[in-house]
Amino acid sequence: MSGVDAAVVGAGSAGLTVAVGLARLGRRVALVEAGEVGGDCTNAGCIPSKALIRLAREGADPVAALAEVRRLRDALRAREDAEVSALPGLHLVRGRARLLGPGRIGVRGPDGVERRFAARHVVLATGSRPQVLAVPGLPPERVLTTRELFDLDAPPGHLVIAGAGPVGVELASALRRLGSRVTMVALDRLPLPAAPPEAGEAVARGLRARGVDLHLGATLASFDEALRTLEIRTPGGPVQVAGVDRVLMAVGRLPAVEGLGLARVGLAEGPGPIAVDGWGRTAARGVWAAGDVTGAPLLTSAAGAEGRRVVRRIGLPWLPAVGRPPVVPWCVFGEPEVAHAGPLPDEVAARCHEGVLMRLRVDLAAIDRGYVDGVGEGFASVVAVRLTGRIVSATVVGPGAGEVIGQLAMAIARRIPLWRVFGLVQPYPTYAGAVGALADEFTRRTLPALPAEARAWARHRLRRAGA
Amino acid sequence: MSGVDAAVVGAGSAGLTVAVGLARLGRRVALVEAGEVGGDCTNAGCIPSKALIRLAREGADPVAALAEVRRLRDALRAREDAEVSALPGLHLVRGRARLLGPGRIGVRGPDGVERRFAARHVVLATGSRPQVLAVPGLPPERVLTTRELFDLDAPPGHLVIAGAGPVGVELASALRRLGSRVTMVALDRLPLPAAPPEAGEAVARGLRARGVDLHLGATLASFDEALRTLEIRTPGGPVQVAGVDRVLMAVGRLPAVEGLGLARVGLAEGPGPIAVDGWGRTAARGVWAAGDVTGAPLLTSAAGAEGRRVVRRIGLPWLPAVGRPPVVPWCVFGEPEVAHAGPLPDEVAARCHEGVLMRLRVDLAAIDRGYVDGVGEGFASVVAVRLTGRIVSATVVGPGAGEVIGQLAMAIARRIPLWRVFGLVQPYPTYAGAVGALADEFTRRTLPALPAEARAWARHRLRRAGA
Repeated sequence: MSGVDAAVVGAGSAGLTVAVGLARLGRRVALVEAGEVGGDCTNAGCIPSKALIRLAREGADPVAALAEVRRLRDALRAREDAEVSALPGLHLVRGRARLLGPGRIGVRGPDGVERRFAARHVVLATGSRPQVLAVPGLPPERVLTTRELFDLDAPPGHLVIAGAGPVGVELASALRRLGSRVTMVALDRLPLPAAPPEAGEAVARGLRARGVDLHLGATLASFDEALRTLEIRTPGGPVQVAGVDRVLMAVGRLPAVEGLGLARVGLAEGPGPIAVDGWGRTAARGVWAAGDVTGAPLLTSAAGAEGRRVVRRIGLPWLPAVGRPPVVPWCVFGEPEVAHAGPLPDEVAARCHEGVLMRLRVDLAAIDRGYVDGVGEGFASVVAVRLTGRIVSATVVGPGAGEVIGQLAMAIARRIPLWRVFGLVQPYPTYAGAVGALADEFTRRTLPALPAEARAWARHRLRRAGA
Repeated sequence: MSGVDAAVVGAGSAGLTVAVGLARLGRRVALVEAGEVGGDCTNAGCIPSKALIRLAREGADPVAALAEVRRLRDALRAREDAEVSALPGLHLVRGRARLLGPGRIGVRGPDGVERRFAARHVVLATGSRPQVLAVPGLPPERVLTTRELFDLDAPPGHLVIAGAGPVGVELASALRRLGSRVTMVALDRLPLPAAPPEAGEAVARGLRARGVDLHLGATLASFDEALRTLEIRTPGGPVQVAGVDRVLMAVGRLPAVEGLGLARVGLAEGPGPIAVDGWGRTAARGVWAAGDVTGAPLLTSAAGAEGRRVVRRIGLPWLPAVGRPPVVPWCVFGEPEVAHAGPLPDEVAARCHEGVLMRLRVDLAAIDRGYVDGVGEGFASVVAVRLTGRIVSATVVGPGAGEVIGQLAMAIARRIPLWRVFGLVQPYPTYAGAVGALADEFTRRTLPALPAEARAWARHRLRRAGA
């Protein structure tokens, strides 16, 4: 084991993808992990949070729900551990890795001894860690991140959630359903600031309807332990939040680069992400990076995609180059669910003249599945290019959003225009029917106005930089 | 109103699609309906059944559930009625239509008077009606079809369902949950005989697990009213089913052609469907047909697709011809859900040599969404062409099946091979992840064996008749 084809540092979503992928292609791989196999997704992220959301929606007992979450998490961890250990050519090395120089890494094991490996390729997939805000007066034992939350015996009586991103939004709904009082404090003007505003507005209404005390445009100021009172600053002035048990920090994540010894291979040491090219190569020869540590979207799917491009480049270099970066659809499993694929509104505005765009929206209540399910709020929308019907981006808010966005992401990635989508038959009655309804609406608006649509397209299409 | 561009007979899914589509394109349309606008889908099919399934799964009170189903049905009926009435150029004519000759129809209204219309195009979209088996001794008042079921005040105490197709399977689950004792008697060897057998097997296990008394390969023999006992013939001999309250006939549907006067325009009169070409044209000039009456799959989505091709041909004849018939995905909302797209196993066998096919299957429990949701039985499978990765057909069994099949149907219809699907990123964690897992599996099996796969493909591809 002193010489391997690839040493992969970190056994989370990106690292596992790289290590398993390369081992399956016959390469000798050392996979280094200091903590648990599965990374944050299995141990502190998607898996426990989605299990908790599901159990909360099913009305499970709060204490039993948390125990079941841990059982599911631990069983998956064990399964992934076993799968990795059983794979020929893949060697799991427990310990903390650092770069020693080009093609060389050292791994300090639980015994404190550092072993050294020669590796033709080193792939850094160390992920990220939750950012923790310093709040004057707040004792560390009241602070939670997703790494501790699922190990609680019972939901906190009164939980303050700092941040209204995906983590905060999902856990606010779930813990509210499990009986916690939830106060959410976020700097942003809307929840899910990365999503289109109408999605964030729907989420804000959903949180408030469930009884979450939502403070937007607000910051944590200080904590008085004697009174268990948090002072927050809001646009309307300071507010005292009394009787706080715990504060969950969900304000973002930092790339995990400490102690990696990046300078030893000539890379910049610092708090920022590791820069990579379109294949995942860093500026140092033979050193690659994938997943959260590269500043990629903090998504298991994005980490997997980054891992796959490294596998492809190292393992199958004769395959033709991938052209465009992948379309990475995402879904936040709050209430309502929010899913999106394609560029966000700002990027769309930067790339396309508004005059070349057609914005289409279908309320889920207006399609038959939404009607029979009694859906209140919820919609599917696309931004499309006029005349051609090319789909630029898509958003779905409501039940099934995560599933429906899969088909829309396929249409975006494979450039299937709405004219073609119009010719497809959707399963009935499903939320996928909204995809058909959007294509119907495009056709209905475009067909009777072809000359005007063609003129608008011809006049404004030129700002489609690089499209 | 004595002369119109098109007279559409029947205001169900196909007829509404044609009438609304042509009216929106500026044509003058008479839409003739003897019963309720919305046809069987709104009034006796998808809408009430899916509403009942949803309410049953939510644990609603049985009597309240049936009342809510009626409320939803009637409100949708009223909405569709209003939408149709408000559309310029569309005239809703209440009554029963018959062909009088080329370009002429008569409509007998509720007042018994027949009015006559000249119509450049006549579109027959009269749908189908449930087939009712004659069972010696069974009084008519014990017989139900979907047309009466939803008007019951309460679920029957003991319901026998004749047939194990989509209607029987969906209603068996729902009524079982609402407290009915359910005995299912079907001639077929498996439920959903049109589905791949592994799907039918999963449904049989699901029905039995819910306490449905399932008799396959069986027929209704006779009924003894005094004892309220049904005798059925099963492969193991006769069985007495005691204490029967009602018998739901769900053994198929017959095209509604009676009284249409097909012979007046030279078409064959008879119990069978009306034959049409790829555009929906019958053998009689200016007479079209769409939906169930053509023998199309008994699906709202298929009826809609047939309606759209008629709209396209009459209203937009300058659009290029549609090449292949559409891929019509379908979903049966039993427990588990079963969805399918593409040809069924027999058709696949007729078209392709087995040696050119790769069968791929992913258990939903093995993908992360299925794992966190605690899914027991359930899978996604595809039949693909070796080497090229073209998807021939796809089946999904389990939660989200109807949504996931949408994306797979798009891949089939737009000929997106598994190589390309492999390059897509799926939203995480969703059941759509199964689509990605199928592509992973294809790549994993094909890449290390490219020469053998290429040889198999070259040797066996030639039986791909017309593909």
